[in-house]
Amino acid sequence: MTPVRIGIAGLGTVGGGLLEMMAAGGPLAGAVSLSGICARDRARKRAVDVSAVPWFDDPVALATAPDVDVFVELMGGADGPAKAAVEAALRAGKAVVSANKALLAEHGEALAHLARESGAQLRWEAAVAGGIPAVKVLREGLAANRVQAVAGVLNGTCNYILTEMDRTGRAFAEVLADAQQLGYAEADPTLDVSGADAGHKLALLAAVAFTGTPDFGGVALEGIAAVEPVDLETARFLGYRVKLVARAARTGAGITQSVRPTLLPADHPIARIDGPLNAVVIDAEPVGRLVLTGRGAGAGPTASAVAADLMDLAFGDVRPVFAGPADLMADPAATATAVAVPSRFYVRLRVADRPGVIAAITDLVARHGISIESFLQRPPEPGATSVPIILTTKPCPEAELRAAIAELAGTDVLLGTPLVMPVESA
Amino acid sequence: MTPVRIGIAGLGTVGGGLLEMMAAGGPLAGAVSLSGICARDRARKRAVDVSAVPWFDDPVALATAPDVDVFVELMGGADGPAKAAVEAALRAGKAVVSANKALLAEHGEALAHLARESGAQLRWEAAVAGGIPAVKVLREGLAANRVQAVAGVLNGTCNYILTEMDRTGRAFAEVLADAQQLGYAEADPTLDVSGADAGHKLALLAAVAFTGTPDFGGVALEGIAAVEPVDLETARFLGYRVKLVARAARTGAGITQSVRPTLLPADHPIARIDGPLNAVVIDAEPVGRLVLTGRGAGAGPTASAVAADLMDLAFGDVRPVFAGPADLMADPAATATAVAVPSRFYVRLRVADRPGVIAAITDLVARHGISIESFLQRPPEPGATSVPIILTTKPCPEAELRAAIAELAGTDVLLGTPLVMPVESA
Repeated sequence: MTPVRIGIAGLGTVGGGLLEMMAAGGPLAGAVSLSGICARDRARKRAVDVSAVPWFDDPVALATAPDVDVFVELMGGADGPAKAAVEAALRAGKAVVSANKALLAEHGEALAHLARESGAQLRWEAAVAGGIPAVKVLREGLAANRVQAVAGVLNGTCNYILTEMDRTGRAFAEVLADAQQLGYAEADPTLDVSGADAGHKLALLAAVAFTGTPDFGGVALEGIAAVEPVDLETARFLGYRVKLVARAARTGAGITQSVRPTLLPADHPIARIDGPLNAVVIDAEPVGRLVLTGRGAGAGPTASAVAADLMDLAFGDVRPVFAGPADLMADPAATATAVAVPSRFYVRLRVADRPGVIAAITDLVARHGISIESFLQRPPEPGATSVPIILTTKPCPEAELRAAIAELAGTDVLLGTPLVMPVESA
Repeated sequence: MTPVRIGIAGLGTVGGGLLEMMAAGGPLAGAVSLSGICARDRARKRAVDVSAVPWFDDPVALATAPDVDVFVELMGGADGPAKAAVEAALRAGKAVVSANKALLAEHGEALAHLARESGAQLRWEAAVAGGIPAVKVLREGLAANRVQAVAGVLNGTCNYILTEMDRTGRAFAEVLADAQQLGYAEADPTLDVSGADAGHKLALLAAVAFTGTPDFGGVALEGIAAVEPVDLETARFLGYRVKLVARAARTGAGITQSVRPTLLPADHPIARIDGPLNAVVIDAEPVGRLVLTGRGAGAGPTASAVAADLMDLAFGDVRPVFAGPADLMADPAATATAVAVPSRFYVRLRVADRPGVIAAITDLVARHGISIESFLQRPPEPGATSVPIILTTKPCPEAELRAAIAELAGTDVLLGTPLVMPVESA
């Protein structure tokens, strides 16, 4: 092992956690020395005294400083200074360790190209699933496997909100407001609750598992704002839990990538991942199914992942940025295309409370060739003018189901927007 | 990546799986070329045609052949030809990949010494937990963490037997006989049911997590033969499951290592690992808790782990045999000493069915300063001359509990041998 000289840009939660790990001694202290730091506010009080460390106002200057071997980018943001500094480091042939999922998911291909050109290493374990070494497991532990699917619960904020809604029966907006007050959700929660954050992470995992190139634009995104307590309650009654599932899978027609609220059987390995935990499920040949769970965010877990990348670099480990071996990229199935694979679905409709409605719905669904697996009409909620009808289907193409719902929307039976969620098997 | 030339000794389940992975093309086929093979029976029909591959009758000759860069040892056995061949390869400065937990657990220190002397790499991901990349996760993914405890369900045979006993209420001996017929247990099941196999694996994990040196002799071993259906049923009634848990933990007085049947709360992350699955739970700072589950044995999963080691070597990756960074070995707590940490315990006694027995037991336990948490007397089983009494204790030193039981054994109250199992919290 040869110690590496690092420069850290960004001293927020993760940067602070990394400084604490270095200050605590142990293996990391022996593997790195700190050549410089850069953060938004020089005057801010920090848990670790950094007054003796050279300060840089400009992350690009830090990234290209002669005594920096590895640039550690913990600033965040898909564009702006983080991107400029990472590009500058890679162009200068310096290794980069980044926790920036947005940057990597949106500009990963270009950055990997820069890294290949200069022969620099670009590592990003901390960008996905916090402390879970999911990237290392996929890239190295399963290096010789053929991955069929990668799925995960990758956004702690959404998982916390769904867990709380399920536990208390309270509505999304209320639980979100509480989560914001508790610091579990951002003041602007859009990136999390829209599914985009999980989508960034999924695109990165899929790049390693399948394609060699992150394709965030190819991720079908659906957030959790439309999920209601009645859905969680009914799912539970039917033997399921609702999670925001990020899933990429190899199909005959290509790689599908989606982030959406999904019903998982109660005994599915990630159905019980509650609160801020993350989980990653990998189905691959010949290894079979691997499940990894752990803390998905926070100073300690994320700094642990950054530190592992730094230790790898100190050990002289050299790997491609995204894919395992290059020949994976020539895989004919390795094109990120969203294709419609038949699935079972959960559908919640709100309908007018009057005779003939059930018949109208079941007739319509049947005409579209969709078989119903379960059908529940719940009593109207107090003061409600509509009744919720919930059905689950046998496997069918989602387009056909959407067509049936669109037809229903043209009548006066349907009130409000229906919610459609896929139903996974074990 | 530079392809490596390999020699495979041992073409049983795992060796056959590895040949199939190579024959299937994909990343492994690009990373290795096969210079020679060696197995017990040259004439045996194999799934992959190896007639064109140079055959060696002597594994030592294969291990030291000039066109072999990496010797792949899949023969098994702690001593004999496997040991001789691995030693010869390491002395010759050749990398070794081995799935042989007995060899590594019992002779790991000497082998690591040979490897250091010649600068050879010795890899053994496949020796522990089948397809789960637990070694890589500990050694690299958590390289900068301080591990507090590693625990796991590491023996598929025992887990299958306990799962079946729990599911069907049948006795150990009956379920074992069935498992043997189904091929889930060996004709001589001692290594598995005694806990020794799990102990080998635990000693290896503990070496990476804590000490740098496997100490199989320091593992307190207890098998599953004494567990009865009544224990599984009562544990379930109390909200627990019984698993053969292998556990190594850092304590003030050193590292404890044990393999023993253990009560886990039903919501513990490995309480629901059933059948042939393996699970590894790592508690470390600052990452928190990581849980890894997957298939713990079989051709595919184990070959996947061997292949990952080979891919690492093709990527030129260099790591110490057991520990992460060398300074871990200087850790003052890194001495493998079995120390008694107070724990909660489950105790099942069979006693004579007569008045005053409960009072005698509770008095005795109280005199030893042990607090009872729950106490159940079950009705006598049909035709039985004894009644089972089951109690769980608050945390107490095991020695004190054993002293109380020894005292009871000196009376005519106790019939048969009591079973004592630790009770874990979440």
